[in-house]
Amino acid sequence: MAASPTYGELTDKGASTNIAWHEASVDRAERAKARGHRSAILWFTGLSGSGKSTLANAVNAALFKRGLATYVLDGDNIRHGLCKDLGFSDADREENIRRIGEVAKLFLDSGVIVLTAFVSPFRADRDKARALVENGDFLEIHCDAALDVCESRDPKGLYAKARAGQIKEFTGISSPYEAPENAELRIDTGGQELQQSVEIVISTLQDRGVIPAA
Amino acid sequence: MAASPTYGELTDKGASTNIAWHEASVDRAERAKARGHRSAILWFTGLSGSGKSTLANAVNAALFKRGLATYVLDGDNIRHGLCKDLGFSDADREENIRRIGEVAKLFLDSGVIVLTAFVSPFRADRDKARALVENGDFLEIHCDAALDVCESRDPKGLYAKARAGQIKEFTGISSPYEAPENAELRIDTGGQELQQSVEIVISTLQDRGVIPAA
Repeated sequence: MAASPTYGELTDKGASTNIAWHEASVDRAERAKARGHRSAILWFTGLSGSGKSTLANAVNAALFKRGLATYVLDGDNIRHGLCKDLGFSDADREENIRRIGEVAKLFLDSGVIVLTAFVSPFRADRDKARALVENGDFLEIHCDAALDVCESRDPKGLYAKARAGQIKEFTGISSPYEAPENAELRIDTGGQELQQSVEIVISTLQDRGVIPAA
Repeated sequence: MAASPTYGELTDKGASTNIAWHEASVDRAERAKARGHRSAILWFTGLSGSGKSTLANAVNAALFKRGLATYVLDGDNIRHGLCKDLGFSDADREENIRRIGEVAKLFLDSGVIVLTAFVSPFRADRDKARALVENGDFLEIHCDAALDVCESRDPKGLYAKARAGQIKEFTGISSPYEAPENAELRIDTGGQELQQSVEIVISTLQDRGVIPAA
């Protein structure tokens, strides 16, 4: 620990001066100007195994290479941290998505392009996250792969457990996935090369003026 | 909304290719290298009216001017968002600080110097936030102003309400403030000019190698 510096005594002058302290906040527009790009929430949604986290991380890496400020929120950094108190009841799932939406909003405000990669199966919960921010700041990206493709991948063995009844209310097996009806993007993560999917997301960000052309 | 692009059909090739998709994550060290500075959590703690938010915002503005990635978490962006479900019971106060610590950790991981400005009166809660991250990533900054100075400022009229019994368990009046014993910095926000306080924080960040010398 560094030693604390020595400070002056309390003085009347100090106290009265301090009343004049004012907020020197930096707003989102200033950050965007300094960074050379707008911020946005890229909300990836889809079945387990549909490639949300893979695609989000690949887009993230591509944007990072271009010098842009980005961050991925996914199970790895949320489930054992901010949301570790939550289980899988309906109320807890809803609260999980609510918190992710609020954290994404903070990153948006900080000038970062934030990519969230969660199943987020319910339309109402996704719409609530969308409603937290301005129109145009939230891009819903449906990672659309057929259930049998996702189940054949089963990278974490979750489908096998769900089929064996060891996981209750597993999305696609014993709990519904409500596909987006008006997503900004639908990506064929069942059949398409990853690089092609990345390019579609990037070009959409360019077309919408979030990031400059390469 | 942009029209969705057209995608190819699902193919066996696609599905098998996708199994080889791998994570392309960007880590904190890469971000620090690209940005030219490390990230850190600057945890401002002190009585209501001690100048936490003012100092945090002024440091934030100074760092932003130097082109660094920064963000302030305070009541303005947390209380009505991520933590709007929480009240002021002991359990809720603890959960409030827990969530702020977890969100600060996410910003840290994203390469941002994050400044949190909350009373955070209890040592145990602050220590839990500190314990979430590596040694050296968490700088506790005690905004130290005498109670009578804070009460005379009373920018939000909260002390008056607390004295009138309209706010229960108000820190400093009817609930304890546990001052840090080993804070990385103690700042005399009761008597010292704001600019001097800002300079102390900035030079500490330089001395610790978080940010380069100006």
